[in-house]
Amino acid sequence: MQSNPAMEDRAYHAAVVDLLGAIAYGEISAFERLAADARMCPTLADKAELARMASVEFGHYERLTAYLAELGADPIEAMGPFAQAFDAFHQRTRSNDWLEGLVTAYVGDGLAADFYTEIGAFLDPETRRIVTESLRDAGNAAFVVSRVRAAIEQDHRVAGRLALWGRRLMGEALTQAQRVAAERDELTALLAGGVDRPGLDLAAIGRLFARLTENHTARMTSLGLDA
Amino acid sequence: MQSNPAMEDRAYHAAVVDLLGAIAYGEISAFERLAADARMCPTLADKAELARMASVEFGHYERLTAYLAELGADPIEAMGPFAQAFDAFHQRTRSNDWLEGLVTAYVGDGLAADFYTEIGAFLDPETRRIVTESLRDAGNAAFVVSRVRAAIEQDHRVAGRLALWGRRLMGEALTQAQRVAAERDELTALLAGGVDRPGLDLAAIGRLFARLTENHTARMTSLGLDA
Repeated sequence: MQSNPAMEDRAYHAAVVDLLGAIAYGEISAFERLAADARMCPTLADKAELARMASVEFGHYERLTAYLAELGADPIEAMGPFAQAFDAFHQRTRSNDWLEGLVTAYVGDGLAADFYTEIGAFLDPETRRIVTESLRDAGNAAFVVSRVRAAIEQDHRVAGRLALWGRRLMGEALTQAQRVAAERDELTALLAGGVDRPGLDLAAIGRLFARLTENHTARMTSLGLDA
Repeated sequence: MQSNPAMEDRAYHAAVVDLLGAIAYGEISAFERLAADARMCPTLADKAELARMASVEFGHYERLTAYLAELGADPIEAMGPFAQAFDAFHQRTRSNDWLEGLVTAYVGDGLAADFYTEIGAFLDPETRRIVTESLRDAGNAAFVVSRVRAAIEQDHRVAGRLALWGRRLMGEALTQAQRVAAERDELTALLAGGVDRPGLDLAAIGRLFARLTENHTARMTSLGLDA
């Protein structure tokens, strides 16, 4: 992409390809997960809502892979390095019922959106726009909140179970994120900064994680759950 | 919908609601099926293609349910009577591998498109347009044909197995269609005609089925399979 001067920095270009590969794989695996969870929905209306959420994720996937291709990258290759971490996350957090699936969608989407928004500060404007657009909430939040709260009202024990579920999700997400961070120098270089690019020191990274955790807690609270 | 004079005929209105309910349920169950089959894909590129096909089906579903709402019908209620037949079809033809899934998508979509196009002759122009648009092939055919042919080239035994599969699909589809026809007078009234509407006699219905079978045979041939 000749029109984006930021891409002339090869290390930056590699980092962006890595980042978009990670987000794109996250979107397509979210699609798969939501579509699978849709089968567990108690009503056709709920199933249609989960299918809609899945289709929105797939739309994001298509935009991200189109941008990767514009950058001269092979989208499939760019996603490859992240398949294992996302697959492991989804395997270890397979939903036992549709409420767990809802919480996963809400908490997972929220966490991903927060993290990629933070990383957006280190991106050129065009890439940042693509990333931000692909993370826009498609009205999922209101739907999930209303369904989870209704379920808790019907049976208070649901709250304890789903609170545990939320903690497990956060734990698995952090485990997999750490694994990716350890393996993908291109991506972590984004956060660490470069010769001409600002970066984060250890204290700043600590504050970033504090913000992610706070937002997670706020989301759990909005569901009526202890974080 | 006051603007469509055809809808003033209550029997016709009921028939259209039934027809659109059937198509919409077909689309959302095709979405589910494709999304489930995507999990079996050998490569990420193939998985993305099946996910794309699933999202296209969901897009059709959204347009059809929006039109149902315009007609003053509850889309969920309109779909209800058809859930059993479509669910039974998918349950009895659950894919054992992704090639079977591809053949189902191609043969099923083709058959549905043929049938609804035939029925289109009995619809008012606006409804016909909605139905036709929602059945437009989204480039699935070329993808399926190339993948199935490649698989047969690699292992000729695949052809015999998938040919049997195609026959089973056609048999199950006809079984379920017959069940729907027996139960849904509103829908069959469309084909039979009304006071002011042309209809089909038994001989014409026979010719219709002959055309559907011919097209099915042509599709199987394009896959390199005996019908």
